[in-house]
Amino acid sequence: MSQSPYIGSTEYFPGIGRIPFEGAGSDNPLAFKHYDADKVVGERTMREHLRFAACYWHTFTNAGHDPFGPGTRRFPWEHPTPMATAEARVDAAFEFFSKLGVPYYCFHDIDLAPDADDIGEYEANLQHMVALAGERQQATGVRLLWGTANLFTHPRYMNGAATNPDFAVVARAAVQVKAALEATVALGGEHYVFWGGREGYASLHNTDMKRELGHFARFLTMARDHGRSIGFKGKFLIEPKPMEPMKHQYDFDSATCAGFLRAHGLQDDFMLNIEANHATLSGHTFEHDLQVASDHGLLGSIDANRGNAQNGWDTDQFPTDLYDTVGAMLVVLRQGGLVGGLNFDAKARRESTDMQDLFEAHIGGMDAFARGLEVAHALLHDSPWEAWRAGRYASFDAGAGAQFAAGTLSLDALRAIAAGQGEPAQRSGHQERYENLLNQYLLRA
Amino acid sequence: MSQSPYIGSTEYFPGIGRIPFEGAGSDNPLAFKHYDADKVVGERTMREHLRFAACYWHTFTNAGHDPFGPGTRRFPWEHPTPMATAEARVDAAFEFFSKLGVPYYCFHDIDLAPDADDIGEYEANLQHMVALAGERQQATGVRLLWGTANLFTHPRYMNGAATNPDFAVVARAAVQVKAALEATVALGGEHYVFWGGREGYASLHNTDMKRELGHFARFLTMARDHGRSIGFKGKFLIEPKPMEPMKHQYDFDSATCAGFLRAHGLQDDFMLNIEANHATLSGHTFEHDLQVASDHGLLGSIDANRGNAQNGWDTDQFPTDLYDTVGAMLVVLRQGGLVGGLNFDAKARRESTDMQDLFEAHIGGMDAFARGLEVAHALLHDSPWEAWRAGRYASFDAGAGAQFAAGTLSLDALRAIAAGQGEPAQRSGHQERYENLLNQYLLRA
Amino acid sequence: MSQSPYIGSTEYFPGIGRIPFEGAGSDNPLAFKHYDADKVVGERTMREHLRFAACYWHTFTNAGHDPFGPGTRRFPWEHPTPMATAEARVDAAFEFFSKLGVPYYCFHDIDLAPDADDIGEYEANLQHMVALAGERQQATGVRLLWGTANLFTHPRYMNGAATNPDFAVVARAAVQVKAALEATVALGGEHYVFWGGREGYASLHNTDMKRELGHFARFLTMARDHGRSIGFKGKFLIEPKPMEPMKHQYDFDSATCAGFLRAHGLQDDFMLNIEANHATLSGHTFEHDLQVASDHGLLGSIDANRGNAQNGWDTDQFPTDLYDTVGAMLVVLRQGGLVGGLNFDAKARRESTDMQDLFEAHIGGMDAFARGLEVAHALLHDSPWEAWRAGRYASFDAGAGAQFAAGTLSLDALRAIAAGQGEPAQRSGHQERYENLLNQYLLRA
Amino acid sequence: MSQSPYIGSTEYFPGIGRIPFEGAGSDNPLAFKHYDADKVVGERTMREHLRFAACYWHTFTNAGHDPFGPGTRRFPWEHPTPMATAEARVDAAFEFFSKLGVPYYCFHDIDLAPDADDIGEYEANLQHMVALAGERQQATGVRLLWGTANLFTHPRYMNGAATNPDFAVVARAAVQVKAALEATVALGGEHYVFWGGREGYASLHNTDMKRELGHFARFLTMARDHGRSIGFKGKFLIEPKPMEPMKHQYDFDSATCAGFLRAHGLQDDFMLNIEANHATLSGHTFEHDLQVASDHGLLGSIDANRGNAQNGWDTDQFPTDLYDTVGAMLVVLRQGGLVGGLNFDAKARRESTDMQDLFEAHIGGMDAFARGLEVAHALLHDSPWEAWRAGRYASFDAGAGAQFAAGTLSLDALRAIAAGQGEPAQRSGHQERYENLLNQYLLRA
Repeated sequence: MSQSPYIGSTEYFPGIGRIPFEGAGSDNPLAFKHYDADKVVGERTMREHLRFAACYWHTFTNAGHDPFGPGTRRFPWEHPTPMATAEARVDAAFEFFSKLGVPYYCFHDIDLAPDADDIGEYEANLQHMVALAGERQQATGVRLLWGTANLFTHPRYMNGAATNPDFAVVARAAVQVKAALEATVALGGEHYVFWGGREGYASLHNTDMKRELGHFARFLTMARDHGRSIGFKGKFLIEPKPMEPMKHQYDFDSATCAGFLRAHGLQDDFMLNIEANHATLSGHTFEHDLQVASDHGLLGSIDANRGNAQNGWDTDQFPTDLYDTVGAMLVVLRQGGLVGGLNFDAKARRESTDMQDLFEAHIGGMDAFARGLEVAHALLHDSPWEAWRAGRYASFDAGAGAQFAAGTLSLDALRAIAAGQGEPAQRSGHQERYENLLNQYLLRA
Repeated sequence: MSQSPYIGSTEYFPGIGRIPFEGAGSDNPLAFKHYDADKVVGERTMREHLRFAACYWHTFTNAGHDPFGPGTRRFPWEHPTPMATAEARVDAAFEFFSKLGVPYYCFHDIDLAPDADDIGEYEANLQHMVALAGERQQATGVRLLWGTANLFTHPRYMNGAATNPDFAVVARAAVQVKAALEATVALGGEHYVFWGGREGYASLHNTDMKRELGHFARFLTMARDHGRSIGFKGKFLIEPKPMEPMKHQYDFDSATCAGFLRAHGLQDDFMLNIEANHATLSGHTFEHDLQVASDHGLLGSIDANRGNAQNGWDTDQFPTDLYDTVGAMLVVLRQGGLVGGLNFDAKARRESTDMQDLFEAHIGGMDAFARGLEVAHALLHDSPWEAWRAGRYASFDAGAGAQFAAGTLSLDALRAIAAGQGEPAQRSGHQERYENLLNQYLLRA
Repeated sequence: MSQSPYIGSTEYFPGIGRIPFEGAGSDNPLAFKHYDADKVVGERTMREHLRFAACYWHTFTNAGHDPFGPGTRRFPWEHPTPMATAEARVDAAFEFFSKLGVPYYCFHDIDLAPDADDIGEYEANLQHMVALAGERQQATGVRLLWGTANLFTHPRYMNGAATNPDFAVVARAAVQVKAALEATVALGGEHYVFWGGREGYASLHNTDMKRELGHFARFLTMARDHGRSIGFKGKFLIEPKPMEPMKHQYDFDSATCAGFLRAHGLQDDFMLNIEANHATLSGHTFEHDLQVASDHGLLGSIDANRGNAQNGWDTDQFPTDLYDTVGAMLVVLRQGGLVGGLNFDAKARRESTDMQDLFEAHIGGMDAFARGLEVAHALLHDSPWEAWRAGRYASFDAGAGAQFAAGTLSLDALRAIAAGQGEPAQRSGHQERYENLLNQYLLRA
Repeated sequence: MSQSPYIGSTEYFPGIGRIPFEGAGSDNPLAFKHYDADKVVGERTMREHLRFAACYWHTFTNAGHDPFGPGTRRFPWEHPTPMATAEARVDAAFEFFSKLGVPYYCFHDIDLAPDADDIGEYEANLQHMVALAGERQQATGVRLLWGTANLFTHPRYMNGAATNPDFAVVARAAVQVKAALEATVALGGEHYVFWGGREGYASLHNTDMKRELGHFARFLTMARDHGRSIGFKGKFLIEPKPMEPMKHQYDFDSATCAGFLRAHGLQDDFMLNIEANHATLSGHTFEHDLQVASDHGLLGSIDANRGNAQNGWDTDQFPTDLYDTVGAMLVVLRQGGLVGGLNFDAKARRESTDMQDLFEAHIGGMDAFARGLEVAHALLHDSPWEAWRAGRYASFDAGAGAQFAAGTLSLDALRAIAAGQGEPAQRSGHQERYENLLNQYLLRA
C-alpha cells in the first residue's frame, strides 16, 4: 500500500495527512495509539489480522439523518447533480482510505453510483462509477472487501425485496443484485453481502412467513449461481439483524441464519457477516453471536460497530468498548482469522459534524480493535485462560466421557455409571477469576 | 370424563364443586364464561381443540417463592415428611383437575415424588407415586399430556445437566431422564418434554458452546433411543427459552431449536413445546414463535401463560390477554391442531394466596383461550382475513412468479422480466385493516 | 359541528364521505363500530369524554420515511413549492377532519407552514397559514386542541433547543416558540405543548445536565410569561419521552417531569401530555404513567398511540389494543376527564400507502377508545372493581390506621401497636380476579 | 486498621491471609493489582476515596439460590440452629473483612441475627448479635457504613411493608425499622438505608398508588424522627430500583426519588444510595443515575455491582467493567466524594462455589474501582476533558447568555437577539473525541 495519500483534483480533507502510529503515550488525536499496521502479533501483522475496511455509505453518503431530522454534515463533495457528487465522492473516499491507512472498503451499488428507476440508466451509472473506483483502487492499493446491493431504501421495497409478496418487486430486486455482483467481480471484490433490511414483516397478520422464506432461499440460490457463472470465487455473506426497519426480520441472528442456510443447502457458499449492534439487538452479546457463527463454520466477516444497552435501535456507533473488541478477537483468533475483515459499518454521531470527526471516529475504532487483538492474543497464548477452560471438560477427553461424546453409550449405560459413582463433586465455575484475568491483561502494558 | 369430582380421603378445596359453564352473562367468579367443553367449533369440540392441561409444579408444589422471599401459599396438603406430602398432594391435584374439568395434566419427576440423592431411593419414590397417580387417572379419566425430568433444581446441575462440563453430572442426569421417561410410559403419557433450564452458560468466558451442544445432541439421541426401546410412541418436545436462570440458554427460540434438531437428525422424533413467556423473552411475539415452529412442522404443544413487557424475567402469569390467545389459535387452527395441548405452565401471583385463587386463575386462562379459539375460527372461516392474505401472494400462483418459486428461473431471467415490466405498482399492506378486523371479531358476540 | 364534510377547491379523499356509526355488527371498514359521538356514557357524550384530535404532522406531512428509506405515501396535495403544498394541505386536512368527525386537531408550526431560516420569512409563512386555518376552523367547527413548535427537525437543533450548549441556538428556538404560541392564541387553541425531542444528550461525556436543565426551566418560564402576557388561558403541556432521537431525554417520564416542574415552580401552569409509546419506552405501562401524572394532578392530555413490546423505538402505531384503552379510560374517568383530549399522534404504517388507510387507521383508534370508555365506565360503575380496591385499604379509614395516614403516630407507637396485635393475617391480592373481571366486561356486549 | 487479620475461634478461610497489593504485574489471583489503600490520588488516599464496604447478606448468608434452585455454596459457618450459625457467621465475616482489608461493612437486621415472628424474640436476637458485632468492630477497626431492615423476605410483606394496604403490616414493619435503626446507632453506623423491595405493586388493578405513596412518606418521616430522637446523625438513604420482585417499584430511579423526597420535605435528611444494576434496569446508565442524584445534591452512597445488558433482572454481579467504574468515579470526584461509600452489594455467581471465589470476586471489584479512580482523576486533572466540556457552554458565561441563565430575559428579547445574529454556527459535539480520550487514559500506565 502506498504511503503517500491519494488526492484527486480537489483535496477534501486538507490539513490531515497520513495517520501515523505514535503509540500509547501520544496526545495527538490524529495518530494511532495502538494500531501499528506492521507490528507482528503471533504469526501475522496487525494489518493481516484485522483487515480493516471503511464503508462507503455511512462515511461518504450519510449526512446524519435520523427519524426526527435530516442530515447535519455538509460534505464538501456535494454537487448539484447526483453524478457530479458521485464523481467527487469517489475521490474523497479514496483520499480518506489512503490517509487513514485502511486496506479495504465496502459499498452498496447506490452509494457508489446514483440510483435510477430506469434500469438501463441505473446500470450505466454503476458501470461508470465502477470504472472510476477501479482506477482509484489501482492508484492506492486499496481493495474491495465486499460489495452489496441496497434493496431497502427505494419505496418499491417497502414490503420486502426478495421476500416481497409481489413478484414484480422480486424481479426488480434481481436487477440490482445482478449489477452489484458484477460490479463486485469487476473490482476484484473478495466477497458479496446480503443484508435483508426489509426481508421480514411489519405485521404477522398479513404475512405468510413460510412462503416468503422459500422465496428468499430461491433468490439467494439464483444469486449464488449467477455469481459462480461469472467467476466470483468469494463467499456470499448473510448479515443477521433481528428487526428495524421491519418489526421482525427473517435473518434474526447467527443461529437462525445457520439453520436457514443448512435447510436450503446454501452452507458451502454462504457465510455470515456479524454486526455487533445487530447481535445486541437480538438479545445476545456480540461475542456470543460471533461464537455461534464460528461454531457453525460460518463466521466470515464482521461489521465492527457498537450499540448501547439503553437504546433499542441500531445506533451504529464506532466500536470503542475494549471488552467488545477483546471478545471478538478471542473468537477470531481461535478460528484462525477471517476470510473477510473488520468493516466499520459505523457512523460518526449526528452531532459530530466536522470532517476531522470522521477520522477520529475511525482511529478510535482501529485502536480499540488493535488493542483487543493484543489482549486476546496474550490471553490465549500467555495466560492460563485456555488451560482453565479446557480443564473443565477433561472428563470427556477419555474413558466413558469420551464414549458418551462419541455417541456409543446408551441411556441405561449412563444410569449404570451414575449408580456406580456417588454424588458428583461440586466444581466451581470460577467466573470471577476469568473476569479478573481479562482486566489484568487489558491493563497490563 | 367423570362429572363428579374426585375427592380423596380429605377434601382439599371444600366449598368449590365442578366448575360449570354459565356463559358471558354470569358474574360467578367460579364459572366459565366462554369455555363450554362440548361446544362444537368447526369440526371439533372446544375440549378437543384446546386439550387443556394443568401443571403439577406451579399449582401444587410451588408456594410462590421469588428471589427475594420464600413461598407464601400454605398448601393444606403439606405434611411433616416429603412422602406424606406427596401422597396428599396427588389427591389434591386430581381433586383440582376434576373440579376444574381439565382433561390433562403434566409433571416433573420431583414434583410428583420426593427427590433423593440416592438413586435407588429416588427411583423407588417415583415408582411409588406413579402407581398412585395411575390409580387416580383411572378414577377420574384425567390423562397425562406429558412428563419430564427436573434437571435444574438440584445444585449438582448448577453448570448444566446434559451440557455440564463434568461427565459425572451428565451421567447423573441420565438417571432422571430414564426414570421420568419410564414413568411417562407407565402412565400412558402422550409426550415427553425437555426444558433445559441450565443448558446454557453463566459466562461465555469459561464455556465451550460447541462441545456442550454436541453433548446435548448425544444425550437427546440416547433418550430418544431409550424411549423407543420401551415402547414410547409420542413426541419428544424441546421447550425453547432464551435465558434465565442462565445468562444464555442454548434453546433460545423456535428457529434456533429447529436448526439444532435438523443438524443432529432429530427432527422426526422431536417437536417443540412453545411457552408464551419464553417467546417474549427471546424478542419475539408468542404468535411469531408459534408460527416459526409450525412452519418447520415442529409445533407440537404449548405452555400457555404470559409475561409482561416491563419485566425481563419469566413471570409465568396466567394467560388472559385475548390478543395472545387469538394469535395462538390462528396458528394452531391453520396447522390443523396440536398433537400436544395447552398446558398452563402458569402460576398464580405470589400475592394470590387463597386456594380459590388457583381456580380463578385457571378459569380466566381457559376462558381466554376458548374465546381466542372462537375468534380465530371466525376470522379464518367467516371473515375476509385469509382471502386478503392469500391475495397478496397471488403473483406467485402462476406464470413467471410460480416459476421463480419453483426455482426454475435464473438471475438473468429475473432481470429480463424486470426490464420488461416497468416500475412495480405500489401495493398497500393494509395492516390497520387487519387490526381493525381482529377487534371487530373479538368484540362481536 | 357541521355534518356535511368540508371540501375545498379540490376533493382530496374522493369516494369517502362522512364516516357513519353503524355499530358492532357492521362489516363496513369505513364505519364506526363503537364510536357513536352523541351516545351518552355516564353524564357525558362520547364526543365530550374522548375529545379526539387528529394530528397535522403524521397524517398530512409525514409520507412514511424511516431511518432506512424515504416516505412512501404520495399525497395528492403535494405541489412544486412548499407554500402551494401548505395551502393545499390545509384543505385536505380539514376535509379529513370533517369526514372523520374529530372535533379537534393539533399542529407544529412547520407542519402547517413552510419553515425558513430567515426569521421574517418564517413568521410570515406561519401567519399566512394561520389565517387560512382559521377560516377552515370557522367553516367546519373543528377546533385547535393544542399547538406546538418543532424544535428538533432543523439541523441547528442537533445539540438541543432550549438546552443547547450554545446560547445562539436557544435564542433561535425562542423565535419559534413565540410564533407558535401566538399562532395558537390566534386560532383559539386550548393548550400549548412542549415535546423536547432534542432536549437531552447524545453523550454524557460532553454534557452538563444540571446546567442544561436550569436553562430549560428558564426557557419554559419565559414561554409561560409570554403566553400569559398575550392572553393565553390554557395549560402548557410537557410531553415526557425517555430517549430517541437522543440517547437520553430529560423529560424521561411522568415522575421525572413532575419533580422538575415542582422544583422550578411551574406546576400551576404546566401539566403533562402523556403518549402511550413514550410511556412504554420508559419502562412503564401506558396506564402507569397516566396514573402517576394524574396522582400529581398533572394529567392534562394524551397522545393516543401504541408501540409494541419487541421494538425499542417509537413506532407510533394507531391504538387498537383494548387493554390499553380500558386502562387509560379508567385513569381519565377517575380524575373526572381531561382538560385536553385524545390526540392521535400516530402514523399509518409506512406500508399502508392508500389514502383510505389513513381513515381506517383513525377509525380503528376511535373505536378502540370508545369501547375502552364503555368498559372502563362499566367497571367503575356497574362492577365490584372499585369496592374491591377500596376494601383493601379499609384499615386506614379509621382508628390507628387513619392516625398513621395523618402523620400523628410515632415509630414507637407503631411498634407498640404491632406488639399488641400478633402476626398480621394474610390477605390475598386477588390479581387474577381483577384480570378476569376486566375480560368479562370487555367481552360483554 | 489492624494489619493482622481477625480470626475467631475457628478460621473460616484457611490458607488465605491478608490480601496484599502487588501491582499490575502480579499474577497472584489473591493480590490487588491496582488497589493500594495508602496510595494518594489527589488529596486523599485510595482508602479514603473509595470507602469500600462488604455486605453481610450476599457474602455470608446467601448461598446462591435463584428462582430455579436453592443455594449451592456450603458455608463452613452453618450450624444446626440459626443462632449458632449467626454467632459463627459474625466471626467468619470479620475474618473476611480483615483479610480483604475493607474498612466498612453493611447489614440487614436478619442477616446479622435470626428472624422471629415473635417481636420480643426478634429484638433480643438482634441485640445479642449487635453486641458480638460491636466487639469484633472494636477488635478489627472495621466500621459499619450503614444498617438496614429487611422488609421484603418475610411473607407478611408480600403486598408491601410501609406501603402495604393493611395497616397491621405497616405497624409490623415499624418493629424492624426501629430495631435496625437502634442497632445501627449502637454500632456507630454512619448511615441508614431503605430499600423498598416490595414497596410497589404486582398489579395496578388492585392498587391505589397515591395512597400508598402517602403512607410511604409518613413512614419515612416517622423513621427520621425516631432516628434523630436517639442521636442518629447520619443520612437516611433511599435506594432506587424500578422493579423486581414487584412488577413496578415506587423508587424507580434517582429522578423519581428526588421528586418524592422534595414533595414530602425529606430532602435534608435523606439522600440516595445508587446501585449500578438498579440504574441499568431503569433504562439509564449507572453514570447517568449517579449524575442525576449528584445534580440534586442527593448522591450519598453507592451499591457497587453490575448487571448485564442481556438479562432483565438484578444479577448483582461484581463490578469489573472499567467503563462503569471510571464513569462512577468521574461523578464522585466532581462532587468532592461520598458521605457514604462503595458497598459491594454483589454476589459471587451461583456457580462460583469455592470460598476463595468470594475473595477473588471482591478483589476484582476493588481493583476495578481503584483503576477507575485513577483514570477519572487523570481525566479531570491531567487531560483536556473538563476544558472541552466547559468550553461548550461558554456562551452562557457572560453577556446575554448569562442574562438568560439568570432569568432576566423575556421571550421577546430572545427573539430580538436571534433576529440580530443570523443562523447559528454549527458546533460539533465531538463525542468520539471524548470516547477516544477515555480509552487513551484507561490504557495509559
